[in-house]
Amino acid sequence: MIPKSHPRYKSLISRDKIVNAYKSGILADSGMIAHGRGEAFDYLIGEKTTETAEKAIEAAAAALILAKNPVISVNGNTTALVPEHVVELAEALGAKIEINLFYRTPERVKTIWKFLKDQGAGEILGTEEEDFKHIEGLDSPRGSVSPEGMYKADVILVPLEDGDRTEALVKEGKFVIAIDLNPLSRTAKTASLTVVDNITRAMPCLTHKVNKLKTKNPDELKKLMDNFNNINNLKESLKIMLNSIKEFE
Amino acid sequence: MIPKSHPRYKSLISRDKIVNAYKSGILADSGMIAHGRGEAFDYLIGEKTTETAEKAIEAAAAALILAKNPVISVNGNTTALVPEHVVELAEALGAKIEINLFYRTPERVKTIWKFLKDQGAGEILGTEEEDFKHIEGLDSPRGSVSPEGMYKADVILVPLEDGDRTEALVKEGKFVIAIDLNPLSRTAKTASLTVVDNITRAMPCLTHKVNKLKTKNPDELKKLMDNFNNINNLKESLKIMLNSIKEFE
Repeated sequence: MIPKSHPRYKSLISRDKIVNAYKSGILADSGMIAHGRGEAFDYLIGEKTTETAEKAIEAAAAALILAKNPVISVNGNTTALVPEHVVELAEALGAKIEINLFYRTPERVKTIWKFLKDQGAGEILGTEEEDFKHIEGLDSPRGSVSPEGMYKADVILVPLEDGDRTEALVKEGKFVIAIDLNPLSRTAKTASLTVVDNITRAMPCLTHKVNKLKTKNPDELKKLMDNFNNINNLKESLKIMLNSIKEFE
Repeated sequence: MIPKSHPRYKSLISRDKIVNAYKSGILADSGMIAHGRGEAFDYLIGEKTTETAEKAIEAAAAALILAKNPVISVNGNTTALVPEHVVELAEALGAKIEINLFYRTPERVKTIWKFLKDQGAGEILGTEEEDFKHIEGLDSPRGSVSPEGMYKADVILVPLEDGDRTEALVKEGKFVIAIDLNPLSRTAKTASLTVVDNITRAMPCLTHKVNKLKTKNPDELKKLMDNFNNINNLKESLKIMLNSIKEFE
Protein backbone atom coordinates (compact mmCIF):
# COMPACT_ATOMS: atom_id res chain seq x y z
CA MET A 1 0.00 0.00 0.00
CA ILE A 2 1.28 3.44 -0.94
CA PRO A 3 0.59 5.89 1.91
CA LYS A 4 -1.60 8.86 0.91
CA SER A 5 0.94 11.20 2.46
CA HIS A 6 3.61 10.19 -0.07
CA PRO A 7 4.62 13.29 -2.07
CA ARG A 8 4.29 11.31 -5.28
CA TYR A 9 1.16 9.41 -4.23
CA LYS A 10 -0.90 10.05 -7.37
CA SER A 11 1.96 9.28 -9.68
CA LEU A 12 2.68 6.00 -7.86
CA ILE A 13 -1.00 5.00 -7.92
CA SER A 14 -1.06 5.55 -11.68
CA ARG A 15 2.09 3.46 -12.04
CA ASP A 16 0.45 0.68 -10.05
CA LYS A 17 -2.58 0.76 -12.30
CA ILE A 18 -0.37 0.63 -15.39
CA VAL A 19 1.64 -2.33 -14.10
CA ASN A 20 -1.51 -4.23 -13.11
CA ALA A 21 -3.09 -3.51 -16.48
CA TYR A 22 0.01 -4.81 -18.21
CA LYS A 23 -0.08 -7.99 -16.18
CA SER A 24 -3.77 -8.56 -16.84
CA GLY A 25 -3.33 -8.11 -20.59
CA ILE A 26 -5.07 -4.74 -20.96
CA LEU A 27 -1.85 -3.02 -21.91
CA ALA A 28 0.64 -3.84 -24.66
CA ASP A 29 4.39 -3.61 -23.95
CA SER A 30 4.62 -0.21 -25.54
CA GLY A 31 1.82 1.06 -23.31
CA MET A 32 3.98 0.77 -20.22
CA ILE A 33 6.84 2.64 -21.89
CA ALA A 34 4.44 5.28 -23.22
CA HIS A 35 3.29 5.88 -19.66
CA GLY A 36 6.84 6.74 -18.68
CA ARG A 37 7.10 9.28 -21.49
CA GLY A 38 3.96 10.89 -20.18
CA GLU A 39 5.42 11.03 -16.67
CA ALA A 40 8.35 13.09 -17.96
CA PHE A 41 6.14 15.69 -19.58
CA ASP A 42 3.81 15.75 -16.59
CA TYR A 43 6.81 16.54 -14.46
CA LEU A 44 7.65 19.51 -16.71
CA ILE A 45 4.08 20.83 -16.56
CA GLY A 46 4.17 20.70 -12.75
CA GLU A 47 1.93 17.63 -12.34
CA LYS A 48 -1.22 19.74 -12.18
CA THR A 49 -4.01 20.85 -14.50
CA THR A 50 -2.83 24.26 -15.68
CA GLU A 51 -5.19 27.15 -16.47
CA THR A 52 -4.17 26.61 -20.08
CA ALA A 53 -5.33 23.00 -19.94
CA GLU A 54 -8.56 24.09 -18.24
CA LYS A 55 -9.34 26.38 -21.18
CA ALA A 56 -8.83 23.45 -23.54
CA ILE A 57 -11.01 21.20 -21.37
CA GLU A 58 -13.80 23.79 -21.39
CA ALA A 59 -13.73 24.06 -25.19
CA ALA A 60 -13.60 20.25 -25.43
CA ALA A 61 -16.67 19.99 -23.20
CA ALA A 62 -18.52 22.46 -25.44
CA ALA A 63 -17.58 20.49 -28.59
CA LEU A 64 -18.70 17.21 -27.03
CA ILE A 65 -22.03 18.66 -25.86
CA LEU A 66 -22.72 20.18 -29.30
CA ALA A 67 -21.83 16.91 -31.07
CA LYS A 68 -24.59 14.90 -32.75
CA ASN A 69 -22.65 11.64 -32.45
CA PRO A 70 -19.90 11.93 -29.87
CA VAL A 71 -17.65 8.89 -29.42
CA ILE A 72 -15.01 8.15 -26.78
CA SER A 73 -12.23 6.03 -28.27
CA VAL A 74 -10.50 3.89 -25.65
CA ASN A 75 -7.20 2.03 -25.73
CA GLY A 76 -5.25 0.09 -23.14
CA ASN A 77 -3.74 3.04 -21.28
CA THR A 78 -7.05 4.89 -21.04
CA THR A 79 -8.75 1.75 -19.74
CA ALA A 80 -5.96 1.16 -17.24
CA LEU A 81 -5.97 4.67 -15.82
CA VAL A 82 -9.50 6.07 -15.99
CA PRO A 83 -12.10 3.38 -16.72
CA GLU A 84 -14.61 4.88 -14.28
CA HIS A 85 -14.26 8.33 -15.83
CA VAL A 86 -14.76 6.98 -19.34
CA VAL A 87 -18.06 5.47 -18.19
CA GLU A 88 -19.05 8.65 -16.34
CA LEU A 89 -18.28 10.92 -19.27
CA ALA A 90 -20.09 8.66 -21.74
CA GLU A 91 -23.16 8.77 -19.50
CA ALA A 92 -23.02 12.53 -19.03
CA LEU A 93 -22.88 13.01 -22.81
CA GLY A 94 -24.91 10.08 -24.04
CA ALA A 95 -21.73 9.29 -25.96
CA LYS A 96 -20.64 5.94 -27.31
CA ILE A 97 -17.56 4.08 -26.11
CA GLU A 98 -15.48 2.35 -28.78
CA ILE A 99 -12.39 0.19 -28.31
CA ASN A 100 -9.55 0.88 -30.74
CA LEU A 101 -6.14 -0.68 -30.21
CA PHE A 102 -2.76 -0.26 -31.84
CA TYR A 103 -1.77 -3.82 -30.94
CA ARG A 104 -5.13 -5.48 -31.28
CA THR A 105 -5.77 -9.09 -30.34
CA PRO A 106 -9.19 -10.65 -29.64
CA GLU A 107 -7.99 -11.39 -26.07
CA ARG A 108 -7.01 -7.79 -25.37
CA VAL A 109 -10.32 -6.52 -26.75
CA LYS A 110 -12.20 -8.95 -24.54
CA THR A 111 -10.17 -8.08 -21.43
CA ILE A 112 -10.71 -4.37 -21.96
CA TRP A 113 -14.38 -4.92 -22.70
CA LYS A 114 -14.82 -6.83 -19.46
CA PHE A 115 -12.86 -4.27 -17.45
CA LEU A 116 -15.05 -1.42 -18.72
CA LYS A 117 -18.22 -3.45 -18.19
CA ASP A 118 -17.18 -4.04 -14.59
CA GLN A 119 -17.04 -0.28 -14.19
CA GLY A 120 -20.63 -0.01 -15.35
CA ALA A 121 -20.21 0.77 -19.05
CA GLY A 122 -23.29 0.41 -21.27
CA GLU A 123 -22.83 -0.62 -24.88
CA ILE A 124 -19.21 -0.86 -26.00
CA LEU A 125 -18.42 -0.72 -29.70
CA GLY A 126 -15.32 -1.90 -31.52
CA THR A 127 -15.54 -5.54 -30.46
CA GLU A 128 -14.79 -8.52 -32.63
CA GLU A 129 -18.40 -9.15 -33.58
CA GLU A 130 -18.70 -6.04 -35.71
CA ASP A 131 -18.57 -5.57 -39.43
CA PHE A 132 -15.95 -2.82 -39.40
CA LYS A 133 -15.72 0.12 -41.76
CA HIS A 134 -12.25 1.31 -42.71
CA ILE A 135 -10.61 4.73 -42.28
CA GLU A 136 -8.30 5.65 -45.12
CA GLY A 137 -4.59 6.06 -44.46
CA LEU A 138 -4.45 3.65 -41.54
CA ASP A 139 -3.47 0.02 -41.48
CA SER A 140 -5.94 -2.47 -40.11
CA PRO A 141 -6.78 -2.88 -37.21
CA ARG A 142 -6.15 0.73 -36.20
CA GLY A 143 -8.19 1.95 -39.14
CA SER A 144 -11.10 -0.40 -38.42
CA VAL A 145 -14.00 1.51 -36.94
CA SER A 146 -17.49 0.63 -35.88
CA PRO A 147 -20.20 1.68 -38.38
CA GLU A 148 -22.34 2.88 -35.48
CA GLY A 149 -19.44 4.49 -33.63
CA MET A 150 -16.46 6.34 -35.01
CA TYR A 151 -17.53 5.88 -38.62
CA LYS A 152 -20.47 8.19 -38.25
CA ALA A 153 -19.15 10.25 -35.32
CA ASP A 154 -18.73 13.99 -35.73
CA VAL A 155 -16.72 14.53 -32.53
CA ILE A 156 -14.26 11.92 -31.19
CA LEU A 157 -12.35 12.01 -27.94
CA VAL A 158 -9.09 10.12 -28.47
CA PRO A 159 -7.07 10.18 -25.24
CA LEU A 160 -3.46 8.99 -25.45
CA GLU A 161 -3.55 8.47 -29.19
CA ASP A 162 -0.83 8.21 -31.84
CA GLY A 163 -0.23 10.84 -34.49
CA ASP A 164 -1.13 8.73 -37.52
CA ARG A 165 -4.56 7.92 -36.24
CA THR A 166 -5.30 11.46 -35.11
CA GLU A 167 -4.32 12.77 -38.52
CA ALA A 168 -6.40 10.20 -40.41
CA LEU A 169 -9.49 10.95 -38.33
CA VAL A 170 -9.11 14.70 -38.85
CA LYS A 171 -8.77 14.08 -42.61
CA GLU A 172 -12.09 12.21 -42.47
CA GLY A 173 -13.63 15.46 -41.29
CA LYS A 174 -13.99 14.48 -37.64
CA PHE A 175 -13.47 16.98 -34.84
CA VAL A 176 -10.78 15.17 -32.88
CA ILE A 177 -10.10 15.94 -29.22
CA ALA A 178 -6.78 14.58 -27.93
CA ILE A 179 -5.47 14.33 -24.39
CA ASP A 180 -1.69 14.33 -24.64
CA LEU A 181 0.98 15.52 -22.21
CA ASN A 182 3.51 16.18 -24.96
CA PRO A 183 2.62 19.46 -26.69
CA LEU A 184 5.31 18.75 -29.29
CA SER A 185 3.82 15.45 -30.41
CA ARG A 186 2.23 15.01 -33.80
CA THR A 187 -0.99 14.02 -32.05
CA ALA A 188 -1.03 17.32 -30.17
CA LYS A 189 -0.34 19.33 -33.29
CA THR A 190 -2.77 17.58 -35.64
CA ALA A 191 -5.77 17.17 -33.34
CA SER A 192 -8.62 19.67 -33.68
CA LEU A 193 -8.29 20.34 -29.96
CA THR A 194 -5.59 19.13 -27.60
CA VAL A 195 -5.75 18.98 -23.83
CA VAL A 196 -2.18 19.01 -22.49
CA ASP A 197 -2.80 17.32 -19.19
CA ASN A 198 -2.55 14.01 -17.39
CA ILE A 199 -5.58 11.92 -18.33
CA THR A 200 -6.19 11.07 -14.67
CA ARG A 201 -6.81 14.77 -13.98
CA ALA A 202 -8.26 15.77 -17.35
CA MET A 203 -11.02 13.16 -17.57
CA PRO A 204 -12.81 13.95 -14.28
CA CYS A 205 -12.36 17.65 -15.01
CA LEU A 206 -13.90 17.19 -18.47
CA THR A 207 -16.91 15.35 -17.03
CA HIS A 208 -17.35 18.10 -14.46
CA LYS A 209 -17.29 20.78 -17.19
CA VAL A 210 -19.74 18.81 -19.35
CA ASN A 211 -22.21 18.59 -16.48
CA LYS A 212 -21.77 22.29 -15.78
CA LEU A 213 -22.14 23.46 -19.38
CA LYS A 214 -24.85 21.04 -20.51
CA THR A 215 -27.65 23.51 -19.73
CA LYS A 216 -26.08 26.40 -21.65
CA ASN A 217 -27.57 27.33 -25.00
CA PRO A 218 -25.79 26.21 -28.20
CA ASP A 219 -24.71 29.75 -29.11
CA GLU A 220 -22.79 30.14 -25.88
CA LEU A 221 -21.15 26.75 -26.38
CA LYS A 222 -20.30 27.60 -29.99
CA LYS A 223 -18.63 30.78 -28.75
CA LEU A 224 -16.48 28.80 -26.30
CA MET A 225 -15.29 26.66 -29.19
CA ASP A 226 -14.69 29.60 -31.53
CA ASN A 227 -12.64 31.45 -28.94
CA PHE A 228 -10.30 28.50 -28.61
CA ASN A 229 -7.14 28.33 -30.71
CA ASN A 230 -5.36 25.00 -30.46
CA ILE A 231 -1.90 26.13 -31.62
CA ASN A 232 -1.93 29.09 -29.25
CA ASN A 233 -3.01 26.85 -26.41
CA LEU A 234 -0.19 24.40 -27.17
CA LYS A 235 2.27 27.30 -27.14
CA GLU A 236 1.01 28.35 -23.72
CA SER A 237 1.62 24.83 -22.39
CA LEU A 238 5.10 24.87 -23.88
CA LYS A 239 5.77 28.18 -22.16
CA ILE A 240 4.88 26.64 -18.81
CA MET A 241 7.33 23.80 -19.52
CA LEU A 242 10.00 26.26 -20.60
CA ASN A 243 9.58 28.18 -17.37
CA SER A 244 9.87 25.05 -15.26
CA ILE A 245 13.15 24.28 -17.02
CA LYS A 246 14.35 27.88 -16.68
CA GLU A 247 13.69 27.90 -12.95
CA PHE A 248 16.59 25.55 -12.53
CA GLU A 249 18.99 27.64 -14.60
CA MET B 1 12.33 -7.47 -37.27
CA ILE B 2 12.60 -3.70 -37.28
CA PRO B 3 14.09 -2.52 -40.60
CA LYS B 4 17.32 -0.54 -40.22
CA SER B 5 15.90 2.17 -42.45
CA HIS B 6 13.19 2.97 -39.91
CA PRO B 7 13.62 6.59 -38.76
CA ARG B 8 13.28 5.49 -35.16
CA TYR B 9 15.30 2.30 -35.54
CA LYS B 10 17.60 2.77 -32.54
CA SER B 11 14.80 3.83 -30.26
CA LEU B 12 12.71 0.80 -31.29
CA ILE B 13 15.64 -1.57 -30.79
CA SER B 14 16.11 -0.20 -27.27
CA ARG B 15 12.41 -0.66 -26.59
CA ASP B 16 12.66 -4.26 -27.75
CA LYS B 17 15.58 -4.88 -25.42
CA ILE B 18 13.67 -3.34 -22.52
CA VAL B 19 10.57 -5.44 -23.15
CA ASN B 20 12.61 -8.64 -23.48
CA ALA B 21 14.53 -7.83 -20.31
CA TYR B 22 11.27 -7.28 -18.47
CA LYS B 23 9.94 -10.61 -19.67
CA SER B 24 13.11 -12.45 -18.69
CA GLY B 25 13.11 -10.96 -15.19
CA ILE B 26 16.07 -8.61 -15.56
CA LEU B 27 13.88 -5.55 -15.24
CA ALA B 28 11.41 -4.59 -12.52
CA ASP B 29 8.05 -3.04 -13.44
CA SER B 30 9.31 0.43 -12.77
CA GLY B 31 12.27 -0.13 -15.09
CA MET B 32 10.00 -0.27 -18.10
CA ILE B 33 8.26 2.95 -17.11
CA ALA B 34 11.59 4.63 -16.34
CA HIS B 35 12.70 3.80 -19.86
CA GLY B 36 9.76 5.77 -21.22
CA ARG B 37 10.71 8.81 -19.13
CA GLY B 38 14.17 8.62 -20.62
CA GLU B 39 12.72 8.47 -24.13
CA ALA B 40 10.94 11.79 -23.55
CA PHE B 41 14.12 13.59 -22.49
CA ASP B 42 16.12 11.96 -25.27
CA TYR B 43 13.57 13.35 -27.70
CA LEU B 44 14.15 16.84 -26.28
CA ILE B 45 17.92 16.53 -26.56
CA GLY B 46 17.61 15.52 -30.21
CA GLU B 47 18.38 11.80 -29.74
CA LYS B 48 22.09 12.34 -30.25
CA THR B 49 25.19 12.75 -28.11
CA THR B 50 25.57 16.52 -27.85
CA GLU B 51 28.92 18.31 -27.67
CA THR B 52 27.98 19.11 -24.10
CA ALA B 53 27.57 15.42 -23.30
CA GLU B 54 30.85 14.66 -25.03
CA LYS B 55 32.63 17.08 -22.70
CA ALA B 56 31.13 15.28 -19.73
CA ILE B 57 32.08 11.89 -21.16
CA GLU B 58 35.66 13.04 -21.62
CA ALA B 59 35.93 14.22 -18.01
CA ALA B 60 34.26 10.99 -16.85
CA ALA B 61 36.84 8.96 -18.78
CA ALA B 62 39.64 10.93 -17.10
CA ALA B 63 38.14 10.34 -13.64
CA LEU B 64 37.75 6.63 -14.27
CA ILE B 65 41.31 6.26 -15.57
CA LEU B 66 42.71 8.15 -12.58
CA ALA B 67 40.68 6.08 -10.13
CA LYS B 68 42.44 3.62 -7.85
CA ASN B 69 39.34 1.45 -7.46
CA PRO B 70 36.82 2.19 -10.18
CA VAL B 71 33.50 0.33 -10.02
CA ILE B 72 30.66 0.11 -12.52
CA SER B 73 27.35 -0.27 -10.72
CA VAL B 74 24.77 -2.10 -12.83
CA ASN B 75 21.02 -2.37 -12.48
CA GLY B 76 18.29 -3.92 -14.63
CA ASN B 77 18.03 -1.15 -17.21
CA THR B 78 21.79 -0.94 -17.73
CA THR B 79 21.99 -4.71 -18.13
CA ALA B 80 19.08 -4.70 -20.54
CA LEU B 81 20.45 -1.97 -22.77
CA VAL B 82 24.26 -2.13 -22.78
CA PRO B 83 25.56 -5.39 -21.27
CA GLU B 84 28.34 -5.68 -23.87
CA HIS B 85 29.50 -2.12 -23.22
CA VAL B 86 29.59 -2.66 -19.45
CA VAL B 87 31.93 -5.59 -20.01
CA GLU B 88 34.03 -3.66 -22.54
CA LEU B 89 34.40 -0.63 -20.29
CA ALA B 90 35.27 -2.76 -17.25
CA GLU B 91 37.99 -4.45 -19.29
CA ALA B 92 39.37 -1.20 -20.66
CA LEU B 93 39.64 0.19 -17.12
CA GLY B 94 40.33 -2.92 -15.11
CA ALA B 95 37.21 -1.84 -13.21
CA LYS B 96 34.92 -4.02 -11.16
CA ILE B 97 31.29 -4.69 -12.04
CA GLU B 98 28.82 -4.70 -9.15
CA ILE B 99 25.11 -5.46 -9.25
CA ASN B 100 22.93 -3.11 -7.22
CA LEU B 101 19.16 -3.23 -7.54
CA PHE B 102 16.34 -1.07 -6.25
CA TYR B 103 13.94 -4.02 -6.31
CA ARG B 104 16.33 -6.76 -5.38
CA THR B 105 15.40 -10.43 -5.38
CA PRO B 106 17.84 -13.35 -5.50
CA GLU B 107 16.28 -14.40 -8.82
CA ARG B 108 16.79 -11.02 -10.45
CA VAL B 109 20.40 -10.90 -9.24
CA LYS B 110 21.02 -14.36 -10.69
CA THR B 111 19.36 -13.53 -14.02
CA ILE B 112 21.40 -10.34 -14.37
CA TRP B 113 24.58 -12.15 -13.33
CA LYS B 114 24.02 -14.79 -16.00
CA PHE B 115 23.17 -12.22 -18.66
CA LEU B 116 26.40 -10.32 -18.00
CA LYS B 117 28.44 -13.51 -17.84
CA ASP B 118 27.06 -14.49 -21.26
CA GLN B 119 28.45 -11.20 -22.55
CA GLY B 120 31.89 -12.18 -21.30
CA ALA B 121 32.01 -10.40 -17.94
CA GLY B 122 34.78 -11.42 -15.51
CA GLU B 123 34.11 -11.27 -11.80
CA ILE B 124 30.77 -9.74 -10.87
CA LEU B 125 30.30 -8.38 -7.36
CA GLY B 126 27.10 -7.72 -5.46
CA THR B 127 25.76 -11.26 -5.60
CA GLU B 128 23.98 -13.06 -2.81
CA GLU B 129 27.07 -14.84 -1.55
CA GLU B 130 28.71 -11.69 -0.20
CA ASP B 131 28.95 -10.33 3.27
CA PHE B 132 27.68 -6.84 2.42
CA LYS B 133 28.78 -3.59 3.99
CA HIS B 134 26.18 -0.90 4.43
CA ILE B 135 26.05 2.66 3.08
CA GLU B 136 24.46 5.13 5.49
CA GLY B 137 21.20 6.83 4.55
CA LEU B 138 19.95 4.06 2.29
CA ASP B 139 17.58 1.24 3.05
CA SER B 140 18.76 -2.27 2.45
CA PRO B 141 19.21 -3.68 -0.18
CA ARG B 142 20.06 -0.50 -2.06
CA GLY B 143 22.56 0.45 0.58
CA SER B 144 24.20 -2.97 0.61
CA VAL B 145 27.56 -2.86 -1.13
CA SER B 146 30.32 -5.31 -1.75
CA PRO B 147 33.36 -4.88 0.57
CA GLU B 148 35.64 -5.40 -2.41
CA GLY B 149 33.55 -3.26 -4.75
CA MET B 150 31.68 -0.07 -4.03
CA TYR B 151 32.64 -0.03 -0.36
CA LYS B 152 36.24 0.71 -1.13
CA ALA B 153 35.73 2.34 -4.53
CA ASP B 154 36.88 5.91 -5.08
CA VAL B 155 35.10 6.42 -8.41
CA ILE B 156 31.75 4.80 -9.20
CA LEU B 157 29.87 4.87 -12.48
CA VAL B 158 26.15 4.64 -11.69
CA PRO B 159 24.19 4.74 -14.92
CA LEU B 160 20.42 5.21 -14.65
CA GLU B 161 20.48 5.63 -10.90
CA ASP B 162 18.06 7.16 -8.41
CA GLY B 163 18.70 10.38 -6.52
CA ASP B 164 18.81 8.88 -3.02
CA ARG B 165 21.54 6.47 -3.87
CA THR B 166 23.59 8.99 -5.79
CA GLU B 167 23.41 11.39 -2.86
CA ALA B 168 24.36 8.74 -0.29
CA LEU B 169 27.38 7.63 -2.31
CA VAL B 170 28.57 11.22 -2.75
CA LYS B 171 28.19 11.72 1.01
CA GLU B 172 30.46 8.71 1.51
CA GLY B 173 33.14 10.64 -0.33
CA LYS B 174 32.87 8.75 -3.61
CA PHE B 175 33.27 10.47 -6.96
CA VAL B 176 29.97 9.49 -8.56
CA ILE B 177 29.48 9.55 -12.32
CA ALA B 178 25.86 9.38 -13.42
CA ILE B 179 24.37 8.84 -16.86
CA ASP B 180 20.94 10.42 -16.83
CA LEU B 181 18.85 11.96 -19.63
CA ASN B 182 16.98 14.24 -17.25
CA PRO B 183 19.21 17.20 -16.32
CA LEU B 184 16.59 18.31 -13.80
CA SER B 185 16.67 15.07 -11.81
CA ARG B 186 18.12 14.86 -8.35
CA THR B 187 20.56 12.26 -9.61
CA ALA B 188 21.84 14.68 -12.24
CA LYS B 189 22.18 17.49 -9.74
CA THR B 190 23.81 15.55 -6.91
CA ALA B 191 26.25 13.40 -8.89
CA SER B 192 29.88 14.53 -9.00
CA LEU B 193 29.67 14.34 -12.78
CA THR B 194 26.60 13.80 -14.93
CA VAL B 195 26.49 12.68 -18.52
CA VAL B 196 23.18 13.83 -20.02
CA ASP B 197 22.89 11.28 -22.77
CA ASN B 198 21.23 8.04 -23.73
CA ILE B 199 23.18 5.18 -22.14
CA THR B 200 23.21 3.29 -25.44
CA ARG B 201 25.24 6.12 -26.98
CA ALA B 202 27.14 7.25 -23.89
CA MET B 203 28.61 3.88 -22.88
CA PRO B 204 30.40 3.02 -26.16
CA CYS B 205 31.54 6.64 -26.39
CA LEU B 206 32.91 6.47 -22.84
CA THR B 207 34.84 3.27 -23.61
CA HIS B 208 36.24 4.89 -26.74
CA LYS B 209 37.42 7.93 -24.75
CA VAL B 210 38.95 5.73 -22.06
CA ASN B 211 40.96 3.85 -24.65
CA LYS B 212 42.02 7.10 -26.26
CA LEU B 213 43.03 8.86 -23.03
CA LYS B 214 44.58 5.89 -21.22
CA THR B 215 48.08 6.74 -22.41
CA LYS B 216 47.93 10.40 -21.32
CA ASN B 217 49.82 11.42 -18.23
CA PRO B 218 47.92 11.96 -14.95
CA ASP B 219 48.41 15.74 -15.00
CA GLU B 220 46.68 16.06 -18.32
CA LEU B 221 43.84 13.87 -17.09
CA LYS B 222 43.58 15.85 -13.88
CA LYS B 223 43.29 19.03 -15.94
CA LEU B 224 40.41 17.55 -17.95
CA MET B 225 38.59 16.86 -14.69
CA ASP B 226 39.36 20.27 -13.17
CA ASN B 227 38.11 22.09 -16.23
CA PHE B 228 34.77 20.37 -15.96
CA ASN B 229 31.93 22.03 -14.06
CA ASN B 230 28.93 19.78 -13.59
CA ILE B 231 26.28 22.43 -12.94
CA ASN B 232 27.40 24.46 -15.96
CA ASN B 233 27.34 21.35 -18.10
CA LEU B 234 23.80 20.53 -16.93
CA LYS B 235 22.75 24.07 -17.78
CA GLU B 236 24.15 23.64 -21.29
CA SER B 237 22.10 20.47 -21.76
CA LEU B 238 19.03 22.28 -20.51
CA LYS B 239 19.66 25.06 -23.01
CA ILE B 240 19.67 22.51 -25.82
CA MET B 241 16.33 21.17 -24.59
CA LEU B 242 14.96 24.71 -24.29
CA ASN B 243 15.95 25.43 -27.87
CA SER B 244 14.32 22.28 -29.17
CA ILE B 245 11.09 23.36 -27.44
CA LYS B 246 11.43 26.93 -28.71
CA GLU B 247 11.85 25.78 -32.30
CA PHE B 248 8.23 24.80 -32.27
CA GLU B 249 7.04 28.14 -30.93
